[in-house]
Amino acid sequence: MAPPTIGWTISQWREAQIASTPEEAANRVLDLVASFDKSDPAWITIATPDQITAQFEALTKLGKDSKDLPLFGVPFAPKDNIDAATFPTTAACPAYLYDPEKDATVVAILKAAGGIVVGKTNLDQFATGLVGARSPYGKTPSAFSDKHVSGGSSAGSGNVVGRGIVPFSLGTDTAGSGRVPAMLNNAIGLKPTRGAFSATGVVPACRTLDCVSIFALTTADAQLVFSIAAQYDEEDAYSRHLPSNLLTSFGPKPRFAVPDKPIFYDETKNPVLYAHALEKFADLGVEIVPQDFSVLYKLAACLYEGPWVGERYTVIADLIKSNPEAIDPVVLGIVKQAEKFTAADLFKYEYLRKDLERAIQKQFAGIDGFIVPTAPLNPTFEELAAEPVVVNSRQGTYTNFVNFADMSALAIPAGFRDDGLPFGVTLISGTFNDYALLDLAERFLAKSPRRLGNTEIYTKPGVDDKLIPNIPKTPKAGGTMQLAVVGAHLSGLPLHYQLTELNAQLAFKTTTSADYRLYHLANTTPPKPGLRRIIPGHPELVGEKIELEVYDIPSANFGAFIAQVPPPLAIGSVELENGHWVKGFVCEENGFDGAKDVTKFGGWRGYVQHMKHVAPAKKPF
Amino acid sequence: MAPPTIGWTISQWREAQIASTPEEAANRVLDLVASFDKSDPAWITIATPDQITAQFEALTKLGKDSKDLPLFGVPFAPKDNIDAATFPTTAACPAYLYDPEKDATVVAILKAAGGIVVGKTNLDQFATGLVGARSPYGKTPSAFSDKHVSGGSSAGSGNVVGRGIVPFSLGTDTAGSGRVPAMLNNAIGLKPTRGAFSATGVVPACRTLDCVSIFALTTADAQLVFSIAAQYDEEDAYSRHLPSNLLTSFGPKPRFAVPDKPIFYDETKNPVLYAHALEKFADLGVEIVPQDFSVLYKLAACLYEGPWVGERYTVIADLIKSNPEAIDPVVLGIVKQAEKFTAADLFKYEYLRKDLERAIQKQFAGIDGFIVPTAPLNPTFEELAAEPVVVNSRQGTYTNFVNFADMSALAIPAGFRDDGLPFGVTLISGTFNDYALLDLAERFLAKSPRRLGNTEIYTKPGVDDKLIPNIPKTPKAGGTMQLAVVGAHLSGLPLHYQLTELNAQLAFKTTTSADYRLYHLANTTPPKPGLRRIIPGHPELVGEKIELEVYDIPSANFGAFIAQVPPPLAIGSVELENGHWVKGFVCEENGFDGAKDVTKFGGWRGYVQHMKHVAPAKKPF
Repeated sequence: MAPPTIGWTISQWREAQIASTPEEAANRVLDLVASFDKSDPAWITIATPDQITAQFEALTKLGKDSKDLPLFGVPFAPKDNIDAATFPTTAACPAYLYDPEKDATVVAILKAAGGIVVGKTNLDQFATGLVGARSPYGKTPSAFSDKHVSGGSSAGSGNVVGRGIVPFSLGTDTAGSGRVPAMLNNAIGLKPTRGAFSATGVVPACRTLDCVSIFALTTADAQLVFSIAAQYDEEDAYSRHLPSNLLTSFGPKPRFAVPDKPIFYDETKNPVLYAHALEKFADLGVEIVPQDFSVLYKLAACLYEGPWVGERYTVIADLIKSNPEAIDPVVLGIVKQAEKFTAADLFKYEYLRKDLERAIQKQFAGIDGFIVPTAPLNPTFEELAAEPVVVNSRQGTYTNFVNFADMSALAIPAGFRDDGLPFGVTLISGTFNDYALLDLAERFLAKSPRRLGNTEIYTKPGVDDKLIPNIPKTPKAGGTMQLAVVGAHLSGLPLHYQLTELNAQLAFKTTTSADYRLYHLANTTPPKPGLRRIIPGHPELVGEKIELEVYDIPSANFGAFIAQVPPPLAIGSVELENGHWVKGFVCEENGFDGAKDVTKFGGWRGYVQHMKHVAPAKKPF
Repeated sequence: MAPPTIGWTISQWREAQIASTPEEAANRVLDLVASFDKSDPAWITIATPDQITAQFEALTKLGKDSKDLPLFGVPFAPKDNIDAATFPTTAACPAYLYDPEKDATVVAILKAAGGIVVGKTNLDQFATGLVGARSPYGKTPSAFSDKHVSGGSSAGSGNVVGRGIVPFSLGTDTAGSGRVPAMLNNAIGLKPTRGAFSATGVVPACRTLDCVSIFALTTADAQLVFSIAAQYDEEDAYSRHLPSNLLTSFGPKPRFAVPDKPIFYDETKNPVLYAHALEKFADLGVEIVPQDFSVLYKLAACLYEGPWVGERYTVIADLIKSNPEAIDPVVLGIVKQAEKFTAADLFKYEYLRKDLERAIQKQFAGIDGFIVPTAPLNPTFEELAAEPVVVNSRQGTYTNFVNFADMSALAIPAGFRDDGLPFGVTLISGTFNDYALLDLAERFLAKSPRRLGNTEIYTKPGVDDKLIPNIPKTPKAGGTMQLAVVGAHLSGLPLHYQLTELNAQLAFKTTTSADYRLYHLANTTPPKPGLRRIIPGHPELVGEKIELEVYDIPSANFGAFIAQVPPPLAIGSVELENGHWVKGFVCEENGFDGAKDVTKFGGWRGYVQHMKHVAPAKKPF
């Protein structure tokens, strides 16, 4: 019997788990795991009841209230090339199996946030493939059809999310392995910027390119997992700090390039859905810019034609020499190609890659990103068996170049074909634009109900895909500063966009201490207030508390903000109700000349509403 | 007869050339070139009179006043692996010779600034070596001794600057080729951050690591050439934009690491001079931090032991196959080692390199840079002939790791041994700290007269090495903001260091418009003023002009600056004498309560001096 939790999002899981007793919470996951079928090719290892219980006990030992854990009791599934303590790691090669000493760093982070590992998922062996059929643990089908592939290499992780078994899973994505299975299972696939997630404890494919990736049912869930797991790892030389000025939105009128001649290899259903998706993006205000994608395809070709297979070779060189029969023959054939490449060949390709990267920068200057089909085809196992390498290669048409060019990518559902199979598109943008991609995806997905994976559950528009607005918390080390605003920058008022543009995040709402008065300054457009601190010993000025909002602004953006502040306003220091001081809007003395005292309205918003009410015909705003 | 220009710095050359008629200016360079000896091994090609005349004519055609050209009529010499139009490029291999269609980009930039190419200099063939003896065009000696090597690979470029023939020359530096010859010829050798100079038109050695470098007689000249030539080149995929927040000084108390057990291979004179140099740096306020340098040596070893010779192989692969006899046998032996490395080997080394880079970051966190011997030895040709590879390898002890770790480096003279040979040290710091290295070198060199190269000319302390303070102009695109300061941030006053720390540059000095008064605020430490703008129609406040200084601050650093501003001060807008408005210090009204009007002193500095004078016993500051 299917457990009642099928198709639950992270927030549904978490709400239910927090509302439960510890036993109920554990039992909910134990029931889920009990429903798994050992012959299901999506799983390589299924958690035992003891492994589940032990994870809940470990959460208890953390000593935190479950409400403080953003993933409390939420099940998830790492791909089996990512270490999870007490589970063997196989990379889909029994001869490679080892028992890891500890969790991969990204798994440890998610478990510390409350997540429960319920099993390890199947993959194209050593993450070499985009099909999901290159595994001795079975060929993983799409959640929609036993005859069609799940896509790879993260075949199992895509499948178990597409079926709604877990609300999220981890994949890895070097050449598209986190995106192609997302399309073929009607899921969200977020391939973070290289280095955003730690790769410590992950079996490398191409270590210079690998990314741990997220499969989820909704953009909100992908965003939540990203915000938790994107942490710098000192132990991983390829790990990177998130910048302090992360882009969170492309704004209302982004420009996205699309291939002027999309390649679908004579497939006829997907092009229709792709065109529909582009129309929908255009309706959202996205400027669709058709471009020649040749330079991107050239870059993509470097990956499998060029010497980067040498990276895969370093991982299994010993096995190739000692026990080549233990390796999937297709995988072996691909990786052994590395033997023909010299170091000098690699340098020649690296120069080519760098030149292509520069050519891409030039051609696509002024473009916010790309919207491409996630994959051109929905292959059957039969088609794959006939041409195992060709089909695999075609599926990477729109994915292979992304990590080479150091881009972020987000695969999202884009409707169903008349044969019931899902299609998807991928949004691609620059380094560390992960959050901005999610923002655009939310706008695309949140307009109408859509089916979650292959479940019978449909989203509530504006709810399930809704992003949490105060994510990201930019890293404290990167540096944010708090700024108190009291006037036209308050949320909903005319200058609020200046904060949004600079990636400011609302920290909290409060009031000043009781030592201020507020004035409507003369001759200001849009109308602006001035905050005036009372002077001790001058009883003619009686202070009151004034409404304000405090925003976190990336330090690097503070200068750009201040450049927009006109006299007599200035950025000084403001005392809050709790006695703390933060940077905030103040006003020079000369500004109060001819100004109108509006203190009695408690704040600028109250005064604005009052003015609208009493004098609507004047349209002062 | 030696021309009178021997030992002239760039500014001496430029002053003389600008003061001359066009004919005199050209003749000065023609006389110089006429003095060159065709058998001099420092030169591969010497400019003909026609080539000199043509370059002066080209300057005339630019239509600029010679005063606008910072290098007007100044002779310089590019290494012969850097293209200069009308000169053949050989890379010290006659079989490789070609006639370039145009100048290398960096040569074109310097010629457009007024520089005159007077010849192409000798090098270790294909820039493979640190000795200067691997060339069919002759073995280049040190400027100080025919028995001692000039060092390489930029042997000729180091030699002609050390002899004072040209005030500056261009080298290339992959593993130390721009630094080792600087020491052995008693010159300045600036190896810019990778990508700061265009490599378009330069014969690659290791394209991922190569840097065009500068030899000069003084820090001021090196700075000037860097500031002119460091320009982004869209045609060079490895070119990089200078960041907007370039560090220009390490501040008064920098921390520099030195090897706890410096390696000199039993040489006994250089260790004494190295110790003296470190003492002198300590006297300047530099904290000398002895450290284990093992991780740096491991990184250095990757360069010649590892597969990076594969990059050199790509450059001459055709020649190795078609005409190996045309290649210097030592160079051939080194480059052919590339054949034994596979692409997979290179990836293994690249992972090692990345891990070592991370280990260096960890170990040297909080350290501003390194001070190392430029090279451990001053080898003779005899010593080199006995052990050609070992001696070469030892000379790279302190240079090989620098480009791998993406660092900037500056080789400077550090005195003479009792045998009359020069010794030098190299200052090394992070990416794009080139200007800050020059600043520290100026402090080291400007204290006492020193001999320029092997000339009989000695510097005037505080003059010849003095850096131009308004360089760098950070790129406008990167973004700086102007800030007017009126109080304790003025130059020489207690809070000025807050500006220096954030890489602020003085833009200009002026006064406010005549609409301000200045107050000494009560209860401020250090004492601070408040600027008060008068209120029209309030005749009791009569405005005056107040002294101020306007600084360019990188926008990205503005937030960090504002974080340090206490109430009642704020950053608002200030009207200048010329009617323009800039961001600047203002003060909330409540701050003037109990404050003392000090307007009559014309500014805070005048008031401070007055207070020191009238009340020295009180020590108010």
